[in-house]
Amino acid sequence: MTYYLGLMAIAAMSITGVIAAGKKGMDIISIILLGVVTAIGGGTLRDIILDTNPIFWITDLSYLWVATGAAIFAFFLVPHVKQVKRLLLYADAFGLSLFGILATEGTLNYGFSAPVAVLMGIITGIAGGILRDLLTIRMPLLTSREFYVTPILLGSTTFVMLDSWMPGIPYTRTISIAVVFIFRASAIQWKLYYPDWLMYKRGE
Amino acid sequence: MTYYLGLMAIAAMSITGVIAAGKKGMDIISIILLGVVTAIGGGTLRDIILDTNPIFWITDLSYLWVATGAAIFAFFLVPHVKQVKRLLLYADAFGLSLFGILATEGTLNYGFSAPVAVLMGIITGIAGGILRDLLTIRMPLLTSREFYVTPILLGSTTFVMLDSWMPGIPYTRTISIAVVFIFRASAIQWKLYYPDWLMYKRGE
Amino acid sequence: MTYYLGLMAIAAMSITGVIAAGKKGMDIISIILLGVVTAIGGGTLRDIILDTNPIFWITDLSYLWVATGAAIFAFFLVPHVKQVKRLLLYADAFGLSLFGILATEGTLNYGFSAPVAVLMGIITGIAGGILRDLLTIRMPLLTSREFYVTPILLGSTTFVMLDSWMPGIPYTRTISIAVVFIFRASAIQWKLYYPDWLMYKRGE
Repeated sequence: MTYYLGLMAIAAMSITGVIAAGKKGMDIISIILLGVVTAIGGGTLRDIILDTNPIFWITDLSYLWVATGAAIFAFFLVPHVKQVKRLLLYADAFGLSLFGILATEGTLNYGFSAPVAVLMGIITGIAGGILRDLLTIRMPLLTSREFYVTPILLGSTTFVMLDSWMPGIPYTRTISIAVVFIFRASAIQWKLYYPDWLMYKRGE
Repeated sequence: MTYYLGLMAIAAMSITGVIAAGKKGMDIISIILLGVVTAIGGGTLRDIILDTNPIFWITDLSYLWVATGAAIFAFFLVPHVKQVKRLLLYADAFGLSLFGILATEGTLNYGFSAPVAVLMGIITGIAGGILRDLLTIRMPLLTSREFYVTPILLGSTTFVMLDSWMPGIPYTRTISIAVVFIFRASAIQWKLYYPDWLMYKRGE
Repeated sequence: MTYYLGLMAIAAMSITGVIAAGKKGMDIISIILLGVVTAIGGGTLRDIILDTNPIFWITDLSYLWVATGAAIFAFFLVPHVKQVKRLLLYADAFGLSLFGILATEGTLNYGFSAPVAVLMGIITGIAGGILRDLLTIRMPLLTSREFYVTPILLGSTTFVMLDSWMPGIPYTRTISIAVVFIFRASAIQWKLYYPDWLMYKRGE
């Protein structure tokens, strides 16, 4: 189950890589590379930081093939989608939720502390997307106004709390993933953000 | 002592992360993430390259909490600071000096050669700042005219020379940190740079 | 032989770092750092991902010295070159070919599977160049129209096929490097790219 959720997240992130980083005139092979790098980037950083060896996609090739397949799918489909910005945001939210919570869970399982598990959840959730945006010099979603880091912070915190206070209850993971996705999706849908005094006042 | 210097450097770099990368309209949680990533980025890269396991902030949570606290402090304070550009440059110089020399020292202690120790000093000193600037697509300080890499190169070289020629003398670290900071601060204050023939002539 | 090819690739990539990322007014030390980081970046990422310890430039200092020397050479020479864009593209193609195929070969030798070896060839070949372009906020070559990822994909695939079907035949490496370089150089020379239906239609 964890395994298939992971593959779904890989597919979703690969599609966001194509949507967000694809530039008119890039060829299909470059587009596939963008999708694959976006999809595996966050988890690769997580595995490098935690020094879990080998990195997840090295031994099980399914991750690479799913990312490749999703990128090819997106290459042909996305140009025909009308609301592509919306598709990007929701697919990103989906990948963010799954990657984030699975990373939090994995980090706890390796025996690291709760704050490290929450931070690894955040980093893994958003690193692929940041890499995607950097590769084509695009302002990362991180800088946008709507709740972005907060949902994954809240979901990861939910996970470590449930896991610590009520170990063994079912659905800990499902609940936490739902917290992230619903919160982020609501933020996109209704343009939710913090009250003014919690927004940064400097910068352009 | 090394430990507290490290925490001070973490705090300084976290503040520069908020100043340089904060964009109007980002919320406090995203701003904290920027501060934390800037603060721990350089040292994380150093530990990954040298494969020192685990990475410094994984087992001792003080680093994360100090970075978080400094970012919150900066979030509320920075909008009221007049000379924010100046604060950024000096805090960056402070973090650069400490991170760079501590990394040089650590690399030597792990038994690596002097040139590797100097390069790790440079990379650790500036990597956090480069990451900070990339995360919000801002031209890195690296490309500015005033001495930036040279002070840390000089300070790291001072450290490896003192350490090799006069091992055991006190203040090797303090002297080297002072070399970096004073040189860089002077470069900021009086706009010092190389003579014309050592400046690159190409590019826009 | 592998060793000297590697050093030549390091020199070529260091020169591309200076050409592409150098900005008017950067000093020689910052320029050298750009060259060195570009030259060792791809291989560093490869060694981190495969967790081959230590990273190649840590124990043998020749790589750092060659990268430094090449960057100094480029610092003084490049401003006098007329067709600098062309020099950049061909030096990048040269470095890409060597780094890519050597990485593919090394990955296979470590016992990883063929698809991982091909992906590592691609990542190692282009990562240094992407890092170079990011460090000075320049649109990566990856997004350009002409064949860029495809030549290295083809060359790496050639290598793993020859290595698997005809193990022990001589020139497997030379042939694969030639495939990448000739294909990429032709793409630059005659502006070759995919037919329209394999080009991405979205994006600006």
